[in-house]
Amino acid sequence: MQRVKIKELLGNTTAMDKVLVKGWVRTRRDSKTFSFMELNDGSCLKNIQVIADVSLDNYAEVVKLTTGSAICVEGRLVASPGKGQKWEIHADHMDIISMAPEDYPLQKKRHSDEFLRTIAHLRPRTNKYGAMFRIRSEMALAIHQFYREKGFRYLHAPVITGSDCEGAGEMFRVTNLDLAGVATSGKMDPSDDFFGQEANLTVSGQLSAEMFALSLGDVYTFGPTFRAENSNTSRHVAEFWMLEPEMAFCDLDGNMDHGEELIKYLTRHAMEQCEEDLSLFTKFVDKGLSNVLSVLVNEPYERITYAQAVDILLKSGKRFEYKVESGIDLQSEHERFLAEVYFKKPVFLTHYPKTIKPFYMRVNDDNETVAAVDLLVPRIGEIIGGSQREERLDVLENRMNEMNLPGEAYWWYLDSRRFGSVPHSGFGMGFERFLMLITGVTNIRDVVPFPRTPGSIDF
Amino acid sequence: MQRVKIKELLGNTTAMDKVLVKGWVRTRRDSKTFSFMELNDGSCLKNIQVIADVSLDNYAEVVKLTTGSAICVEGRLVASPGKGQKWEIHADHMDIISMAPEDYPLQKKRHSDEFLRTIAHLRPRTNKYGAMFRIRSEMALAIHQFYREKGFRYLHAPVITGSDCEGAGEMFRVTNLDLAGVATSGKMDPSDDFFGQEANLTVSGQLSAEMFALSLGDVYTFGPTFRAENSNTSRHVAEFWMLEPEMAFCDLDGNMDHGEELIKYLTRHAMEQCEEDLSLFTKFVDKGLSNVLSVLVNEPYERITYAQAVDILLKSGKRFEYKVESGIDLQSEHERFLAEVYFKKPVFLTHYPKTIKPFYMRVNDDNETVAAVDLLVPRIGEIIGGSQREERLDVLENRMNEMNLPGEAYWWYLDSRRFGSVPHSGFGMGFERFLMLITGVTNIRDVVPFPRTPGSIDF
Repeated sequence: MQRVKIKELLGNTTAMDKVLVKGWVRTRRDSKTFSFMELNDGSCLKNIQVIADVSLDNYAEVVKLTTGSAICVEGRLVASPGKGQKWEIHADHMDIISMAPEDYPLQKKRHSDEFLRTIAHLRPRTNKYGAMFRIRSEMALAIHQFYREKGFRYLHAPVITGSDCEGAGEMFRVTNLDLAGVATSGKMDPSDDFFGQEANLTVSGQLSAEMFALSLGDVYTFGPTFRAENSNTSRHVAEFWMLEPEMAFCDLDGNMDHGEELIKYLTRHAMEQCEEDLSLFTKFVDKGLSNVLSVLVNEPYERITYAQAVDILLKSGKRFEYKVESGIDLQSEHERFLAEVYFKKPVFLTHYPKTIKPFYMRVNDDNETVAAVDLLVPRIGEIIGGSQREERLDVLENRMNEMNLPGEAYWWYLDSRRFGSVPHSGFGMGFERFLMLITGVTNIRDVVPFPRTPGSIDF
Repeated sequence: MQRVKIKELLGNTTAMDKVLVKGWVRTRRDSKTFSFMELNDGSCLKNIQVIADVSLDNYAEVVKLTTGSAICVEGRLVASPGKGQKWEIHADHMDIISMAPEDYPLQKKRHSDEFLRTIAHLRPRTNKYGAMFRIRSEMALAIHQFYREKGFRYLHAPVITGSDCEGAGEMFRVTNLDLAGVATSGKMDPSDDFFGQEANLTVSGQLSAEMFALSLGDVYTFGPTFRAENSNTSRHVAEFWMLEPEMAFCDLDGNMDHGEELIKYLTRHAMEQCEEDLSLFTKFVDKGLSNVLSVLVNEPYERITYAQAVDILLKSGKRFEYKVESGIDLQSEHERFLAEVYFKKPVFLTHYPKTIKPFYMRVNDDNETVAAVDLLVPRIGEIIGGSQREERLDVLENRMNEMNLPGEAYWWYLDSRRFGSVPHSGFGMGFERFLMLITGVTNIRDVVPFPRTPGSIDF
């Protein structure tokens, strides 16, 4: 007999004489001659109620079933008289697959997010984290669906890299040198390492994506990226997933149009496809969530320049922790003020000073600003960062010289401007930040299956 | 005016008075008053022919267009009298976006795969590699589509890990220690490192996937995995993508059913959705490809035990480089003999000796073999490796003791057997091996956008 998942059963339109379900007992309570179990198999948020009675040959065992135990039930799917549940199962036969001991940590009570982080291997068994990781899965698929419909190609950009896209430097090193041996011998020669030179974990797949956009047209990468930043905040993890579309023959306006379309598509998809799981977050995590989602989907996003943004911040009269002045790199508090308080909706900022942006962004005619664009959203701040890329070889080389970047290391990148260079644009969207945005969850550790942070690499 | 991609134009059913295309000139030839260009924009394998005539105001420039140059064409889409092309464009206006210099490496002639690897940033502009990376993209999406239809959840398993799934040891270390400083000071303390302990790049997302399967039911991971193996062969790269489904309440037979269904679905999808791109490989890479694909889709896969396989090999009379005897880890030559020569189709091997398999595989009642399964396919050898997992806590702990694995490091993994343990199974499928299988490409470097191998980390 074929096992049916609970999600399917709950969506059934008719009663059934014989069904087979397998899952884990969330709670159990007994009446005189019945035992009522809430059974969950992870396929959806809701449990199905299973009713066992004394006619079961192993009823004496069944009434000992603990929270977290695994069972296999054969029975009848019948309309439930209970509130909030359409169907229940009357068990004809029950196999106990495993009995969870009493010290199972997920007893029926509220557990703090902090505690649940210490058992990240078990937390997807809770309502909240089950819902979170089903949403995460569905949103990852929505990204692929969106890009497939638009004719983009998916690129697996390399994770181990010899180059440093941002010119940042907060990269993890990848090595197969024997570090204890290095300490003992006092010798460390990168040419002895696996790749014959220093290698790092990528901070962005952009440069790879540019090469492919200039070949296949429209592409995107979606994969893990890394920062060795030693900051223990609710917004930083060392390993996170980033979506990076890159489009040939696309300028800054096209880039913004694309970003707005993306966020709207994904949010609408979440509202339609993850309704049940999202309702948990609306109810228990952020009462204002429905409104946030509605703004994301329905409002046209604002588009202003960096200079206008600075002006708004200066005139706001608000005291910020970091002082606002023209030329500064905006802080999270500034970004959130603009999106959350001032515009009350997402806002694109363009034309940043070139001094605070990477070498590959296209220099504007004023020679002071670049065709950068960030999308700021309420409660999160920056969710998208991108630009039109510098397609002019001479301008690009000048910028690299100004910033002391070694042209030789980027010979292949420069090649793309030598041969068939075209205007092109792209951006990066932090996947975790997007998940925080649509669920209201405020700590990034709680949207990542097994978060990696300074000093923490359990599981 | 909205630009249209060439793929769309070539699929058009009527002529059009006005179209706008952008792309790169693959070749150009002149007659007395016309210039004929083959234009490609990466959206598909085929070019569209663009015809310019002297009436263009910049015709003198147009006839200088070189291979690799980028143009923007406004014109009419008209039925083509030429063979093998339905439509062509008569240009009314042409903008030259960029002129490629004469030393553009991709002139019209055959280039060796070896040469093209040295310009991996440009090779997706060739017919073969454009087709390859469109197929790679489509196959990645097919994986997500397959699992979405089956109700699996997609899990992003961590790339940086503190544990070693295979007990292998060929892992890359991830560090933000200053290695030169370690050499100078002679001190190396893992507790000073970013995560406060040794950290490595994952070789498999399986252990994470097991935790999620025991929460959400059916899950899969699909992401980059790593091996620091110093082997320069046509089958090894240091970074590759692996698909790993993991299914709760699933035994070894279910695992094999799933693997067979997966390979058949993906292969059928490739034949249907990548027909044009695949035809290049059928024509130029492997004439026998259609037959291979047809066997993959239509034949039931063989299922035998390891003992039976050894028996077949011993009786084959064939001289292998590595001598066959019971208990050995089968080599690629053995695997290929079984699938390619003996069965002439995919074959599942089960019941391997426990001595050559990892600790997490379920011990069979004979206490000698484990519920392992490999799927061997013609020309590749192993494409899937998996098992039913050991769900019995005491047996698992015994195995870990036998293999000197520290139980403390795996406390969370053991937890999953303490609380609600159920039979579950899964496997890993090397994505690159699958791509080699369906395209006939024999070097793994040629199915990866930017391959990472010993001594090589360009781009």
